[in-house]
Amino acid sequence: MQQPDVTLETIQSARERIVGWTRRTPVLENETLNALAGAQLYFKCENFQEGGAFKARGATNAVFALSAAELRAGVVTHSSGNHGAAVARAARLRGVRARIVMPENSSRAKLEAVRRYGGEVLLCEPTLAAREALAAQLVRDSGAAFIHPYDDPRVIAGQGTIALELLEDVPDLDWLLLPVGGGGLASGVAVAAKAMRPAMRLVGIEPIGADDAQRSFASGTLSRPQQPSTIADGLRGALSARTFELIRRHLDDIVTVSDEAIVRAMRTLWQHLKIIVEASAAVSYAAVFEHQLDVSGARVGIILTGGNVDLDELPW
Amino acid sequence: MQQPDVTLETIQSARERIVGWTRRTPVLENETLNALAGAQLYFKCENFQEGGAFKARGATNAVFALSAAELRAGVVTHSSGNHGAAVARAARLRGVRARIVMPENSSRAKLEAVRRYGGEVLLCEPTLAAREALAAQLVRDSGAAFIHPYDDPRVIAGQGTIALELLEDVPDLDWLLLPVGGGGLASGVAVAAKAMRPAMRLVGIEPIGADDAQRSFASGTLSRPQQPSTIADGLRGALSARTFELIRRHLDDIVTVSDEAIVRAMRTLWQHLKIIVEASAAVSYAAVFEHQLDVSGARVGIILTGGNVDLDELPW
Repeated sequence: MQQPDVTLETIQSARERIVGWTRRTPVLENETLNALAGAQLYFKCENFQEGGAFKARGATNAVFALSAAELRAGVVTHSSGNHGAAVARAARLRGVRARIVMPENSSRAKLEAVRRYGGEVLLCEPTLAAREALAAQLVRDSGAAFIHPYDDPRVIAGQGTIALELLEDVPDLDWLLLPVGGGGLASGVAVAAKAMRPAMRLVGIEPIGADDAQRSFASGTLSRPQQPSTIADGLRGALSARTFELIRRHLDDIVTVSDEAIVRAMRTLWQHLKIIVEASAAVSYAAVFEHQLDVSGARVGIILTGGNVDLDELPW
Repeated sequence: MQQPDVTLETIQSARERIVGWTRRTPVLENETLNALAGAQLYFKCENFQEGGAFKARGATNAVFALSAAELRAGVVTHSSGNHGAAVARAARLRGVRARIVMPENSSRAKLEAVRRYGGEVLLCEPTLAAREALAAQLVRDSGAAFIHPYDDPRVIAGQGTIALELLEDVPDLDWLLLPVGGGGLASGVAVAAKAMRPAMRLVGIEPIGADDAQRSFASGTLSRPQQPSTIADGLRGALSARTFELIRRHLDDIVTVSDEAIVRAMRTLWQHLKIIVEASAAVSYAAVFEHQLDVSGARVGIILTGGNVDLDELPW
């Protein structure tokens, strides 16, 4: 197993590295949602992050941690979502080439986002094996630096910077709820949050249709993912050995929510917060809204991870 | 003609009166929208205001300016939109009765918003004459205090507080763009903005299908409204003598935008700012997006007035 070399110190360094290149996102509160929950909810709005998702943090930290020599042949990643655009943006800020391997069935919006930031798209068959193979070949042939979407301590540390900002704005949280996909955000935030506020209850939230993290957490051994099926397309990824180890060590629990609950939560957030969040970003609030966690009277941090939605294809 | 007794001082007093009962709303910026416009755009987000619209400012100022004796019989208003809910909310904060006259064809969402804040809804025929007659009768019979949606110096001063906050956050604006309906927001903001920053260019924006303010402004005499027809339902109202006088004196120009431009602008704001704004709130950005104003290289303030949208009835 690889060493999970992500610490509060590497996350603090990540913050210094990305400040100015990413946004400090706001924390929203809402009277109506508090009344519905019987709790004080604090929404950390990564939908307002550069590129519309938290991925800018990890990608920017990884690209800016590399030396000019290491970046000579540019960067490579594979992504079906927001990470590809975030890597392209960070590479452009450093003035280097970015090649993004994407499945050929990627949405037009996702392809356009990568190209808008100057990334070169390389299409492949829509399987994880094909993505990994093509990315590995590019790295081998060109000497480019590879930046994995989540199985990378620099990416994880970048995502962890969310916790530093949130706990500065709301120091006395009782709970912090984290969406879990590949585990980059959950593990980075958990490392920082447990170090800064050990008494806070840290709970990962997963769609029922992509519950590999919950099964792994419950059994204590990394489960192989089954065919994921959920509207929350950002949470279909599977934990790596590294992210599993960090999550196993730092999270208190993982709970799952149904796709129906996710859609209801997404719509309720749009209606009352007046902001656009994607389905993957609504899972934590879904767990509160459906009373799957006993948070009554507590102060609850909820990370809204992104807002990249096809406005012609709303799920209600 | 009534005296337009709204000044920078009454607006500053309004701000002291409503602070704590309303929100200081954020100003958003966006790289992509700036690039599209060739200008620096500063979006003042009243969709995040209490009740989802700027109306909370004027209604709260009007209700809190009344003495306990004046409030003994409660308050009355007529409204088909956000003002009714804002008056109900302010009355509840003062612990007094609020009766809101609404047309019988009001949307369920609008009726529910009033009732959620404890307001009593009285339905009437969907004409302005019927609304005014029923409200006048309630005032006559009960001695309640009447709070007009915009033809009231306390309401206008409350809306003007937007300018104080915006110019604190962004002092060096070159332009400020204001939606014009009944003229409460436009006149209050214009009074404060011209007093604080006389060199700034103040432009009102109206839907083509409800252009009474532009016609009045161009001719110098108050035009009678024709049958308004626009998707921007918050801007169907007609100027009063009072709001016309303030607008005539303080605005530099009024331009109009088509419903098609309003919908394109609304969608573009959703897509890039990741926030929900209603059609009426998108008119100012529509004028920029369609290049109807020569703002290139300038710093432009845009007031996004509200975000109350039926999520099942999007206009695209």
